[in-house]
Amino acid sequence: MKKTIIGVMGPGDGATEIDNKNAYALGQAIAENGWVLLSGGRNVGTMDAACRGAHDAGGLVVGILPSKDGSDASQAVDIQIITAMGGGRNVINILSSDVVISCGMGAGTSSEIGHSVKIGKPTILLNTGKKAEEFFKELAPELIYVAKDVDETMKLIKKLLSS
Amino acid sequence: MKKTIIGVMGPGDGATEIDNKNAYALGQAIAENGWVLLSGGRNVGTMDAACRGAHDAGGLVVGILPSKDGSDASQAVDIQIITAMGGGRNVINILSSDVVISCGMGAGTSSEIGHSVKIGKPTILLNTGKKAEEFFKELAPELIYVAKDVDETMKLIKKLLSS
Amino acid sequence: MKKTIIGVMGPGDGATEIDNKNAYALGQAIAENGWVLLSGGRNVGTMDAACRGAHDAGGLVVGILPSKDGSDASQAVDIQIITAMGGGRNVINILSSDVVISCGMGAGTSSEIGHSVKIGKPTILLNTGKKAEEFFKELAPELIYVAKDVDETMKLIKKLLSS
Amino acid sequence: MKKTIIGVMGPGDGATEIDNKNAYALGQAIAENGWVLLSGGRNVGTMDAACRGAHDAGGLVVGILPSKDGSDASQAVDIQIITAMGGGRNVINILSSDVVISCGMGAGTSSEIGHSVKIGKPTILLNTGKKAEEFFKELAPELIYVAKDVDETMKLIKKLLSS
Repeated sequence: MKKTIIGVMGPGDGATEIDNKNAYALGQAIAENGWVLLSGGRNVGTMDAACRGAHDAGGLVVGILPSKDGSDASQAVDIQIITAMGGGRNVINILSSDVVISCGMGAGTSSEIGHSVKIGKPTILLNTGKKAEEFFKELAPELIYVAKDVDETMKLIKKLLSS
Repeated sequence: MKKTIIGVMGPGDGATEIDNKNAYALGQAIAENGWVLLSGGRNVGTMDAACRGAHDAGGLVVGILPSKDGSDASQAVDIQIITAMGGGRNVINILSSDVVISCGMGAGTSSEIGHSVKIGKPTILLNTGKKAEEFFKELAPELIYVAKDVDETMKLIKKLLSS
Repeated sequence: MKKTIIGVMGPGDGATEIDNKNAYALGQAIAENGWVLLSGGRNVGTMDAACRGAHDAGGLVVGILPSKDGSDASQAVDIQIITAMGGGRNVINILSSDVVISCGMGAGTSSEIGHSVKIGKPTILLNTGKKAEEFFKELAPELIYVAKDVDETMKLIKKLLSS
Repeated sequence: MKKTIIGVMGPGDGATEIDNKNAYALGQAIAENGWVLLSGGRNVGTMDAACRGAHDAGGLVVGILPSKDGSDASQAVDIQIITAMGGGRNVINILSSDVVISCGMGAGTSSEIGHSVKIGKPTILLNTGKKAEEFFKELAPELIYVAKDVDETMKLIKKLLSS
């Protein structure tokens, strides 16, 4: 039976302390709601933080890895999907998520949110900065939601999943 | 914590009754051993049978889907990884599996076993026919194992995982 | 001997008349400079216009196609690279281009420019709108160039290729 | 206008002297017929040899590269398509070829011929060994042709293109 998958995108090396804190809290809350957490799965930044949050709350963690062998994986990833596609795997992150969250913003993340609005996924921006909000809202006003914190993000996910 | 993933490859529409029976039994046994079952995830042939076997035994089922929306997925798939890559996703099936099983043989399956021996994964052939056995054994004698039935396949998996 | 490849990204169905006019002129000028034109290759919008421009000026035209059979290709494409990857092929467009141009903006294009700044390609924005300029300049100030017209775009390409 | 593309697949490091000689001669003959040569594009074995043959005969050479930057490319490649997909790019080699030739056999090549028969491309085996011939002929008798030398391969290509 298909499980609901929530994708948390966001910067790796460029993540801020707030992004990592948000990502950990998102991972926790996603797991507590019984959803699967999906991320880029690497052992760095928001990917690692979201995976650890979900893992610590007893959730199931899927990582879509860019490497050819999983050597880049967060230790908190349960299901390593190995793509050997580098950043080309970003589109798989989006396609496989029922709701997409951008937890912070960076170059790779911008490609993911671009794919998300192209594919037509509901997409929540959390702490991505004003310019990202304005740009993606202009591109796809019907798909982009802006959340002011983790609580509001979780409320939006619930609303989007039940609609 | 990374879970062990066993990949069951095999024909879709071209699967024989024996292939489907084997795939179902493999799915069951994989789940009973606490491993994750991974397959191409489609709602047909050995993919569907292996997923149903693992599901019915209470296991976790991952499907790496060729479609852009999961509309082709077996109902027994828990984690739908959507690739929109068609047969290009075959290499991800192999990369993500700790041990690869070829349950029967077909054109798409042959590309998967080709990727498997190229990448260097231990690969078990079950009911693939004499010509496939001879061809892939010649290509990669150190990677190819031939099993005569599901029981022997399971013994080989255990041996390979512990080595 | 490796040929220089200039990639023209931009909207398909959502292209404005100005975008298509710019894309045609870019294709022409790229061909006149002896460079290969690369685009997403589809028979619509800026992809088709850029391909036609390059073709009409006697240039070589490469299309990286999302379909599985090239049935979506612009008639002006000489070299059809068939990926069957849908929008997943966007990253190949970027990886294969020595300089990337965004001729207009849209959802799919935003994923391409996101990949471009992640990979580190010099990227020229032409008529992408203020919000795209501000967003991508903030993400990667050292990679993003804004051109006011086709002439300035061509001057920037020459400067970037000689640096 | 779409150009005819002939794909020459075959081993890299594992190529025999005969494979490389055949690949060079195939590249030459393909160029002399006005067709584009496509290969995996790497600077080794049959890929390099086929590219050099086509280049030396004045033909156009396309390489679909596994690397993220083209650093692995044969110097004879004109059009570097960079995929960063590793062996995942093998399916693109096949999808983009009007006729596929297997010049020798190896693990990676076997995945390509597997994709080829799955996709339904006419596929010519040259010096691939008895076991490969028997295996792929059994899989797809209507798609597999066996050639005894380069001359016969070229005759088969002409016949296949005109049918």
